[in-house]
This record gives sequence, C-alpha cells and structure tokens, in this order.
Amino acid sequence: MLVVMQSHATDAQIRAVCERIESLGYKAHPIPGAGRTAIGITGNTGVVDIASMEGMPGVVECIPVSKPYKLVSRDVKEENTVVRIKTPLGDVTFGGPAIGVVAGPCAIETAEQAFEIAGHIKAAGIRLFRGGAYKPRTSPYSFQGLGEPGLKILAEIRERFGLGIVTEAVDNESLDLVEKYADVIQIGTRNMQNFSLLKHAGRAAKPILLKRGMSATLDEFLMAAEYIMSEGNYNVILCERGVRTFSDFTRNTLDLSVIPAVQRRSHLPIVVDPSHGTGRRNKVLPLSRAAVAAGADGMLVEVHHDPDHALSDGPQSILPEEFVQLVGEIRQIAAVLHRTIN
Amino acid sequence: MLVVMQSHATDAQIRAVCERIESLGYKAHPIPGAGRTAIGITGNTGVVDIASMEGMPGVVECIPVSKPYKLVSRDVKEENTVVRIKTPLGDVTFGGPAIGVVAGPCAIETAEQAFEIAGHIKAAGIRLFRGGAYKPRTSPYSFQGLGEPGLKILAEIRERFGLGIVTEAVDNESLDLVEKYADVIQIGTRNMQNFSLLKHAGRAAKPILLKRGMSATLDEFLMAAEYIMSEGNYNVILCERGVRTFSDFTRNTLDLSVIPAVQRRSHLPIVVDPSHGTGRRNKVLPLSRAAVAAGADGMLVEVHHDPDHALSDGPQSILPEEFVQLVGEIRQIAAVLHRTIN
Amino acid sequence: MLVVMQSHATDAQIRAVCERIESLGYKAHPIPGAGRTAIGITGNTGVVDIASMEGMPGVVECIPVSKPYKLVSRDVKEENTVVRIKTPLGDVTFGGPAIGVVAGPCAIETAEQAFEIAGHIKAAGIRLFRGGAYKPRTSPYSFQGLGEPGLKILAEIRERFGLGIVTEAVDNESLDLVEKYADVIQIGTRNMQNFSLLKHAGRAAKPILLKRGMSATLDEFLMAAEYIMSEGNYNVILCERGVRTFSDFTRNTLDLSVIPAVQRRSHLPIVVDPSHGTGRRNKVLPLSRAAVAAGADGMLVEVHHDPDHALSDGPQSILPEEFVQLVGEIRQIAAVLHRTIN
Amino acid sequence: MLVVMQSHATDAQIRAVCERIESLGYKAHPIPGAGRTAIGITGNTGVVDIASMEGMPGVVECIPVSKPYKLVSRDVKEENTVVRIKTPLGDVTFGGPAIGVVAGPCAIETAEQAFEIAGHIKAAGIRLFRGGAYKPRTSPYSFQGLGEPGLKILAEIRERFGLGIVTEAVDNESLDLVEKYADVIQIGTRNMQNFSLLKHAGRAAKPILLKRGMSATLDEFLMAAEYIMSEGNYNVILCERGVRTFSDFTRNTLDLSVIPAVQRRSHLPIVVDPSHGTGRRNKVLPLSRAAVAAGADGMLVEVHHDPDHALSDGPQSILPEEFVQLVGEIRQIAAVLHRTIN
Repeated sequence: MLVVMQSHATDAQIRAVCERIESLGYKAHPIPGAGRTAIGITGNTGVVDIASMEGMPGVVECIPVSKPYKLVSRDVKEENTVVRIKTPLGDVTFGGPAIGVVAGPCAIETAEQAFEIAGHIKAAGIRLFRGGAYKPRTSPYSFQGLGEPGLKILAEIRERFGLGIVTEAVDNESLDLVEKYADVIQIGTRNMQNFSLLKHAGRAAKPILLKRGMSATLDEFLMAAEYIMSEGNYNVILCERGVRTFSDFTRNTLDLSVIPAVQRRSHLPIVVDPSHGTGRRNKVLPLSRAAVAAGADGMLVEVHHDPDHALSDGPQSILPEEFVQLVGEIRQIAAVLHRTIN
Repeated sequence: MLVVMQSHATDAQIRAVCERIESLGYKAHPIPGAGRTAIGITGNTGVVDIASMEGMPGVVECIPVSKPYKLVSRDVKEENTVVRIKTPLGDVTFGGPAIGVVAGPCAIETAEQAFEIAGHIKAAGIRLFRGGAYKPRTSPYSFQGLGEPGLKILAEIRERFGLGIVTEAVDNESLDLVEKYADVIQIGTRNMQNFSLLKHAGRAAKPILLKRGMSATLDEFLMAAEYIMSEGNYNVILCERGVRTFSDFTRNTLDLSVIPAVQRRSHLPIVVDPSHGTGRRNKVLPLSRAAVAAGADGMLVEVHHDPDHALSDGPQSILPEEFVQLVGEIRQIAAVLHRTIN
Repeated sequence: MLVVMQSHATDAQIRAVCERIESLGYKAHPIPGAGRTAIGITGNTGVVDIASMEGMPGVVECIPVSKPYKLVSRDVKEENTVVRIKTPLGDVTFGGPAIGVVAGPCAIETAEQAFEIAGHIKAAGIRLFRGGAYKPRTSPYSFQGLGEPGLKILAEIRERFGLGIVTEAVDNESLDLVEKYADVIQIGTRNMQNFSLLKHAGRAAKPILLKRGMSATLDEFLMAAEYIMSEGNYNVILCERGVRTFSDFTRNTLDLSVIPAVQRRSHLPIVVDPSHGTGRRNKVLPLSRAAVAAGADGMLVEVHHDPDHALSDGPQSILPEEFVQLVGEIRQIAAVLHRTIN
Repeated sequence: MLVVMQSHATDAQIRAVCERIESLGYKAHPIPGAGRTAIGITGNTGVVDIASMEGMPGVVECIPVSKPYKLVSRDVKEENTVVRIKTPLGDVTFGGPAIGVVAGPCAIETAEQAFEIAGHIKAAGIRLFRGGAYKPRTSPYSFQGLGEPGLKILAEIRERFGLGIVTEAVDNESLDLVEKYADVIQIGTRNMQNFSLLKHAGRAAKPILLKRGMSATLDEFLMAAEYIMSEGNYNVILCERGVRTFSDFTRNTLDLSVIPAVQRRSHLPIVVDPSHGTGRRNKVLPLSRAAVAAGADGMLVEVHHDPDHALSDGPQSILPEEFVQLVGEIRQIAAVLHRTIN
C-alpha cells in the first residue's frame, strides 16, 4: 500500500504516519517527491485495509498495491490449468488448446424436454450437457426447478446419450446432491460471494464452474476462486456471463476484455456464457464468435427446441439449428487461433 | 405503458387520467382488476414520458408492465409495517415515527473489545447493538469472525448492558444459531439473492434485516423481501448500504433516493448503513444526517474505539465520541421531520 | 506513480524498468518488499500516463498517485472560495455559511410562463432565478429553447422582479450572449468535458455553475473546473446532478457523498440539483433535505406552475406551493448545521 | 408493451402475434400506422417478458413505447448505408461486405512521427490514417494537439502516402478546418451530446465518424446520429469505444453487443475502437478479433512506433509489427464471416 501525503504536510505528520505503519508491524518507506511525499508499506503478509490511515493529519489518500490472491495467480503457477471432464463420449478439456462447449436448456422441465434437447446437443458433436435442477429465480413465484428428480433426469441423459453433465448447486444441501449426479458443479452469479457455499465447493471432488457476480471486479472474481482452491479443489473454471451496467439494450453487458485480463493474471481457464451475457437470442451467435475470437477457453450456451414455452429464459435460448450453426462458426474462428472445439 | 391506480381510486380520478391520456392524443384502456384499476395506453406515435401522469390524484405509478411483487407491496397493505424489537432497555421500532438506531463494531473480535464498545453505545442512549460473529470477507485469508463464541459474547452483551442484538447469518446453519442468540437476523449484501437462505429466514421467528445487493435494482430488492415474506415472516427491515457504480472516491455509492422509492411502493421500513455506504469515516456523519433528512426509518452505524486495530472495516468505523455527535445531529434532523430517535 | 513488479521478477527486469523511468526524465525509487518489489516514480511535474510501463517484462501493474489538479485544490488555497452573486434584492453567496438557492422552470417557454414562476420564486424569499434559453435535448425534434428572445425574457425578470439570473450556454456563441444577459453562466452535464467551451467560460467575466458529467469521476469533475480556472475565471460553483448507474427507479442516481468528498479536496462550493438528480417530483423534497443535511452549499431546483404542460422536464418540476414547503424544510435543516438560506 | 411489426409485415404475421398475445391471456390492440403496424398489449396481470415475442416472423422489437428516432432507423431505410471514402490508393467502404480499417497515432506530434507511422500503416495494406490535431484531454496541462499545423501534416500524409485522413473536430471552428483538410470528420466521445457541434457536422460535406459517449444508451447514441442526419448529412459511421462501468481492470468496458443491436435497429455502419475500448496494449489484438467476429463494419486502431514517448495514450497504442499481426488476424476472422478487409 502507498500513503500519499499533502504537498504541505509537515515532517511531523509524515513521521506520525510512518510510526503508525511501524506500530502495525509493517515497514514504512517515505519517498520524497517534487511536490509531495508518498510512503510505501512493505512487509505485509496479508492485506492492509485500504484507507486505514486516511484520517490522519496531512494524508491525501491510501492506495492498495499487492494483489491478495495466491493460489489462482500465475505468479504461483505459470502454466495453464487444464480442467479435464471425462464423459462416455470422450474427454472435454478447458484451458488447453481445445475449446470446451457446454449446451442445453436453462432448466430441466421434463424428461421429454431434456432428452429432446440432449439429442440435438449430441448430434451437433458436443459432449457436455447443461440444465438446471435448482434455479435461482428473482421471484419466489417463478418455477424453481425440479430438484433431485431433475438431477435424476440429468443422470439418465449421461447414461442414454453419453453426455457429461454440468448443473448448478444453490446451497450446501443441493451441492452434495449435485456432486453425486453431475460431472461439473456450477456456482451461479448470485452465489459468487456466498462464501459458505464456495468453501463447501472447495471440498467437493468434482470440478467447479464459477460464474462471475453481476458486479464483481476482477479481483473479487479471482478471490472467489481462491476460496474454492484454498479448500483443496483446484479444478475451477471461471465463467464470464455479463455484468450489470447502465446499458439497457441487453440484459447484461458481456465483458469480453475479462478474457485476456484473467489469462494474464491467473492460470485458470475462462469460459463465456453469451446467453445470459446478452439475454437476447439474436445476439448469441455474434457474441459467441466474439468470445472465441477473444481467446475464451470455452462456451456455455442455452439451447431449447421450443423456447416460447420454456419455463425460464426462453428469450435468450437459441434453437437447435441455430446451435449447429454456432458450433460451425466458432470452429472456424477457433481454427484462426489454432484451436479446436471439443 | 400502464397507469396503475390506487386501489381506492375514485371513478372520477380514473376518468380524469383517461381524459388526460386522450387529450395527449392517445387511447386509454381502463382495465378494472380484482384489487385496482390499471389503464393501458395505446395509439402513441411518439414517446409517452414514463412519469408524466404520476402526479395525478389516485395514481400509484406509470410502468411498462405490472410489478411482480405482492406481499411487500403497499397495494396489499397500505399502512406502514412497524417492526418492534424488545430489548431489556425498552422497545425499539422501525417504520413508526421513531427512528431506530443500531450501532457497534463490524466484527466481534474479543469480549473486551465488544464490551468496551457496547458501553459506549449504551452511554449514547442507543438500545440496539450490532457486531458480526460470521463475516463474509472477500479474501479467504481475512478474519472470518469468531462463530458461535462470538454469538455468546453478544448474548452476554444483552445480559450485561440490556442492549438488543443484531447480527448476520451467512448460511442455513449459522442462521439457526443466530436466531437462537440474536434479536434481529441480518442477511448481508452478498446474500441478498441467496434464495435458499432467504427462504430459511422466512421460517425464522425473529425479524430480518435485509441488506440491498451491490447491484440490486429496486424490484430485485423488494423481491428478495418477498421471498422471506412468502414463507411467513412478515418482519422485514430493508437496508440501503450503497451500490456499485463507476464512481471511485467512495467504496460504494449511497443511493438515498431509494428511501422515498421504497416508501412509495412498499409498507416495509427502510434503514441506511452509511458506514458501508461510503467506506470512509469522514463521510459517515454527513451521510447519516442526509439519510435521516431523506426519511430513513433507521440507521446502522459501525463504531469502534480503536479502528486502527480493528480486524475488519476499520477505515469506515467512527469513534465513540463521533457516534455521540452523530446521535445528537440526527436527533435534531429527525425533529425537523417530527420524528424521534429510539 | 508506482510500478508493481511480479514476485519472481529478476533484478535485470527491475533494473530495466528503473532505466526506462530515468530515461523519461523522472527518478526511480525501488522499494524491495517481502513478496515483491515496487518502484516509486518522483520528479514528475506533469502526469505519467497510467500503465505506460505495463508491457515491460516482470511488471504486474502501474498505479497512479499524484493528483493532477492544481488551482481547484485545497492544497493551493485552504480557505473556502465564496462566490458572490449580486442581485437587486441583495447578494447571494455560495461557499460561505449561507446556502444559495436557485429556482425556476427547466426552460423559458413564454414571457407569461416565466413571469408567473418568477413571482412564485420571489414570494418564497429566493433571489436567484433559473430557466433555459438554450436546451440540450436528446432528440433534435424536441423543443430546443427560445434562444436570445429567451435571454431577453430573463433580463426582464431581473428588472421586474429583482432576481439574479442563472442560465445555460451550450456553445461559444451562446456563451457570449449568456454572459451579456445573465448573472451566472451554467455549463450543462453533457458539456462538462467540452473543453473548448470550458476554456471560453474561463475567459468570461461572470461566475460559472459547472454541472457534473453523467459518468464523471471526481477527478474529471475537478479537472473540468481546473480548465475554467486555468484561463483566469476563479468563480466556479460545482453542481452534483445525479450520475448514470444501473439503478432504474430514478432518472439518475444522486451521489450525495460527493459533497464531503469535494469539500475535502477543493475550496470550491458544491451545490445539488435534486430535480435532474432524481427525475421524479415526489423525490425532490426528501433529497433536497438530504443534500442540505450532507453539507451542500446550495440547491438548484426546477419549479413550474403547470408541469403537465411544461415543454421539458415536467415530471421532475415541483409546484410553487411545494417549493415554499421545500424552502421551509431546508431552512430548518440548515439551522441544525448552523447555516442559513440565502 | 408495444410489439412493433416490420413495415412489410404480412397480415398473417400480425394475426399470429395477436393470437400469441391472446394465448398468453392478454388483449392485443393492433394499431395500423402510416408506415407500419404496432400492437399494444393490455390486460396483463403479471409481467410480459419484454422480448418474448421478438423472435416471431415480422416482428421488429418489443418495447414499452415507440423509439423517437426516424432517419437512423431501419424502418425508414431497410438496406445498409455504405459510407464510401475515396483515397488516392482506392476507395474504403464502411457498411458493405468489406471491413474498413483506420489506424495511426492518437495525436500528431511532429511531421517525422506522423510520416514514420503513416509508412507503417500503408505497408500493412491499410488506406485510412487517423491522428489527432485537436485533442480533448482531461487536464488543461496535457498536450492539446498541434491544431492547424497538425492538419497540414495530415494533408501532406495524404499527398505523400496516398492515405485518406480521419481526424477529430472539437468545436465549430475546428470542424470547419477539419472539413477542409480531412476525408472523415471524427466527433469524440465527450462531444457525443454536444448538440451544437452535431448540428454543425450535419451541415458538413464530409462523412462523420461519431463515437459513442462514455455512458450513452443505445437510444442516445442513435439520437446523436439523428441530429447529424436531420441537418442533411447522411454519411454517418457509428463507433463503439467502450463505456464506463464499475469494472476497473480496463480503462473502459468494450460493449460489443452494441454491434448486433445497432445493426438490428439502424442502417448505419458501426465500427469499433479497441484501443480506447480497453486502454491496454495487450488487449487490443484479442478485442479486435472479437469485434470483427461480432460483425463490426470497421476498426479504428491506435498505432505508434515509439509508444513510450507518445504525447498521449501511449499505453494503449500497439507497435507497427503488432498492427501487421492484427490486420492478418482480423482478415482471417473476416473471411469466416465472408467479409474482407479494406
């Protein structure tokens, strides 16, 4: 951290700040400048709370420096983490040269609906199926998912179609069940800082797909992954799904710059959900192409054969034939980056 | 657009709105409903200003579509909900003419620290004490709270000082414990859409203080309260604590307009947390005055006798002597609004 | 500025960064830390572009330190600037113990409308009248203001009613005219970074009321004032009028924390416009009280005797009788802070 | 809500939408208009999902009220506007199958610097050169551009290298000069709602490149273009350059979803500026690929041979060799979309 002093700060004020820093167990480095003095703080193994010295006389502001994350950082592990999902149809990897694709309906509604869509996903050459059995909905009066019966439908999809399963857990109880039935446990946007759930996920034996919170900074996003990893589960896939801004023509604003930003700081794979990221069917294809072009390690796409009667998120689900087109297009984009689709 | 009339709007008022609509060149479609009348507008070639009819007698609001919440709505219950907390020192109410104040440290660190601060809170004439035993922290390496031992310290504060206790639950397990020890159960910002926790809180026998999510719209905030109420717990206190915006000189942007907005739509009390809302000690007093002036039904303030050594949120905690000044100032502001502090 | 190195940065990488800094004419101060080295930069009289060294091997990030503003800063001038407006009815000041109030319609529509409202403003004991002759409107097909005939109506209001005049200029041409007719020249939100206009305003002989841009950071806001002051016009009144966020129940999010933040960094007065800041008539009174309670040096309020037929911003204008109530209420709030209304 | 049909929607399509509305339990009100039919929806007790009918044949969009723009709308002109820039090296088009590329330094610093970079741009096969002679800078103490001498250097670049010239105007005076020297007049982000300048640009004889404001909604962006077109200049190129959000790891958040959104509503071409959109050199390449993959009609890229000594925006400028790589990569991405680079 750096403490910036006023240009007319007295020597006594500067000394007082240095003494405060030392009394907290750190080391102070006053750096006299042309116009004013700044004081660097080192020796801190943890994080000094931003602004803890802002109230002292002569202080302009306190600026944080060190990044607080460790296990997620490329400083700790330089090479990419490759998360590998075994499916009856073959392995799917995230973080290697191949780009992983996950597709399926927002929610599991009935076995018929799920099987119908699973058939289309498999036919498109994709090996990971998504579908919610537990749905976090803004309204308590909206469809909340089928619960464990939904998980059983998903298990049957693995058996019948050979597809690996990605599905969301919303609390510690459902996480234990999801871990039992699924291949990848999804933690949703609204739970990105449900630290109790993150720690629980850190003790699960399955990989975690962690969605970015609606207004999470990059540091908060990586720290949420750090929670999971700090409990021993190193198989974390990050997922950008749009953030909340003033912009009102899409449901969220898809922040594709986060892809190179994550890849610079962390070794974890980063995938993109253009369905939630835009909330509009007609924007899923262009933004999917864009995500792969920006370097995404995977895609998470909502597909529904009858979106007008979907129990949730119909307007952002694409049709099976649009999904085939999507896979074809991102395969070509991936080739430009010397990557493949798996 | 839809103009929503109050449920007791007179025929003359409805007619007046229809005439206004027609005089603007549009067509009015009064739609009598079970509880109230709504008036649809069609035939508009230009733009109807969304609020242009909001000032007319009998009008609740003008919106593209009806709001999805029911139990939180003033349409369902016109008079204010008054949440009453019994403390050994006397009752504290939220939602009535008196303004409820809750104060204390961010986290319970030791019995000594907690007792020291509790003494100051009581001396300032305040009867509700806050302090976290479970702390949701961005980093897994930050102090996470004392857990149940912290709750026992809080229980001792009630016994020794006569103060009522407000403290946070972070998951279903801690909520059961908090319910046992505390007078008010707090649901934090990061859990505002942890629907599993909200439903669990809805089955608790204690009032819930629900903090607004970092990027929650007003509808999402009210729907989170609806989750709690839909399970049978009608004692919900809403809390504005700053939202996330581009603005970078405060930790969050305190959105005081939400006070009249909530009071217009809902019967639930709304309180303000200026400590998290600004993140800066020097802004807590001016924004506390502002919150009461804007009509807040209560205040939630972080106080620490030694903020430089606080284990969390030191920079935003005010000193006991500053808290005495704060209570004095908001008491005077409250008097201007013919309200008192309790 | 501070350059933060990776924890495994080599000595050669650190040396390379230091040499780059020195080659740019600055002085490098390497600060070895427990985990990593940070390099402070001093001797810079201007601003080092943030991130100019981010691409070098071993660099994590570059963090800016020095504030770039000079004339607006309290470092340069410790005591408050008091901007004094002479009106036939007596002086109005901004920045002293008295709180200045400006009121009137959004736009000057006709002489009759303007005179009617001016009479109400004067009767409420207020001495500054606002009303736009040049209106920046989102649509080219909306009413754009009367232009110079509007300014002549304003001049007649000064003569007839004794009120001082505040009105907006939208380009260099209109600024010259506004300077001739008005007592205070307003620069609107959309022009806060119209630097050509700011420099022109810096050469005007009348005080400038500068509105914060819709998404302006505090630094950008103060730098816009610096543009005006750097040309020799030191009479600048800052105005918070709401910023653009995700929040959708008000037209803008009124950021009252900016009041203590400005007052900490700058000697310039800061006023609040709750009409644009909320965009809703029913929120103008509570937020006006809040602004004064937070320490605002003045208020800018839209008043219209017939808002339903106003040519712009009707839904946010309050009625003359509401304005009388507003003045009474903020007078009482001001008294709590030992201030008066003028 | 209003469902807006395409102007050539068939009666059967309109009937299908009405039936869908009725099947959902609402009442449909077809309102035949001069150009097209809109269908009002009433009787809704719940919430109609705002986009639930957007996928039906013949539907343009679903909105609370009609959009206020006219000339920019695809309703008025169905086929794409192709803006054609004649350069000595051949025409460059925006809005047709070819993707237009503009590149060069942020600011013209000296003739030598400009010629050096122009040589690299030409060598990369690109025919449009950008460089600012008038620079809107946050600080009045930063380099403000060379002014007319800078324009003369640009004119010499056209003559020597055969490159077309794109450069920014910041006020009415500079716009007249820019019109004289340049092939395309740029209106910058901070002036997107400088309506006086927009109208002036609408009377210019050269095409306008209009950058999106930092917090401009899509409607405001299109309305700014409407200002220009309403004065008779129909050659407008829209430019996304990042918007301001809470997100802090990039200078701005590049909003690529705006590309399909603009293309759905307007016939005007939309280009992307990844340099300002990210503010970081290492993100320019991935986001350039993403922009083209999302369907952008052009790119605006900052290139500098010596970014560390650039007088402005060095950290976001790429090197000439990186630009060669960029052109190669977007050419391959464009091919996937059956487009070329020009």
